[in-house]
Amino acid sequence: MTDRLILTLALLGGTGNLGPGLALRWTKAGYRVIIGSRQAEKAQAVAEQLNTELGFPSIEGMENADALQNCDIGILTVNYSAHQEALESLKGEFKGRILVDATARVDFRDPRPPQAPSAGRIAKQILGDDARVVAAFQTVPAHAMRKNLGGTLDIDVLVCGDDSDAVGQVVKLVDGAGMRGYHAGGLDNAIVVEGLTALIIAMNKRYQSKTGAIKVAGIQR
Amino acid sequence: MTDRLILTLALLGGTGNLGPGLALRWTKAGYRVIIGSRQAEKAQAVAEQLNTELGFPSIEGMENADALQNCDIGILTVNYSAHQEALESLKGEFKGRILVDATARVDFRDPRPPQAPSAGRIAKQILGDDARVVAAFQTVPAHAMRKNLGGTLDIDVLVCGDDSDAVGQVVKLVDGAGMRGYHAGGLDNAIVVEGLTALIIAMNKRYQSKTGAIKVAGIQR
Repeated sequence: MTDRLILTLALLGGTGNLGPGLALRWTKAGYRVIIGSRQAEKAQAVAEQLNTELGFPSIEGMENADALQNCDIGILTVNYSAHQEALESLKGEFKGRILVDATARVDFRDPRPPQAPSAGRIAKQILGDDARVVAAFQTVPAHAMRKNLGGTLDIDVLVCGDDSDAVGQVVKLVDGAGMRGYHAGGLDNAIVVEGLTALIIAMNKRYQSKTGAIKVAGIQR
Repeated sequence: MTDRLILTLALLGGTGNLGPGLALRWTKAGYRVIIGSRQAEKAQAVAEQLNTELGFPSIEGMENADALQNCDIGILTVNYSAHQEALESLKGEFKGRILVDATARVDFRDPRPPQAPSAGRIAKQILGDDARVVAAFQTVPAHAMRKNLGGTLDIDVLVCGDDSDAVGQVVKLVDGAGMRGYHAGGLDNAIVVEGLTALIIAMNKRYQSKTGAIKVAGIQR
């Protein structure tokens, strides 16, 4: 499914903070992009807004299940409180597709590192063999996504998953969005990346930023 | 104690991988440095070796408790299997000094993120009011410490602690060693930094490096 020339990406729960920015970046990089939401109308309204920003009609809006059916890879960008419900409602619909889980279960107002299992592991427990689960984008600052559209950002993404081929495909998606992806081990390692968001929130508050992010040094990909 | 012009730093359990490199960097930066070990002879041998590398006699070697008594700030760089025993043997000797805990309880051969509480929190539980505990340097690659001695490294250090003044002093130590320190929240956040070492080990293996490290982006200190 993912050997097509142009991949279609569905941002499931993509009407929040992170989804629209990633949608713009991937559209600029030549991917087809669908915004998914529980309500088709909401998805279509956000898609329309983004197309206006882009200056051309490209992004579509659909109900989450339809978005999933029409995509090659689904990226879940819901708020952490909606994580489990969203996955349960989509169970059986992945049909072997990759799910990229961007969820970090950290409360902005009281940021603490969450306990294992990671959100990605929970997703895998819910979806079973229906989806190839990869965790990524948890530490990406939504506020930075609209900067340098079509270009690169000084941000790295730690990509965790037990399915190496799926992780490799997600690393390419990261690169496509103008960041650098690193295969950072199995799905259980994602608990660390989730926890990093608590540290980034703490640093953002202390150093008065909204765009704190993580990078990797000392490694040549 | 820490308002002296020249601070004395004790690397407790400093004869392993990380201690000697930090000792060289801090000596070059103008700190007085003591290597501590369970055996005074071993500490003295390592100190002598380092002084030969430096080309001048500066670093001293002592038994851990003596090193602690003669320092302003103690930095614990033992292997994780020796963490608890080292702290119990030094309990009551800190007398209000800062303990910088660099321990990451991750097995190089089977790297997994550890469960909370963090090593730093465990240290605080053992030492109580005897020490101001700050967690730092867990993700620093020992292999990189001897590069660009006296200069800077492309490595950041996430510094976690509940005592903000103590964290500030440790951030200065990080900067003194030619890296950049960031106050990344309370002591419980250190569990994430410990876990990062598991991801760095995974990336080092995958991308064939020995010097993987973490950096912070998008934040002006």
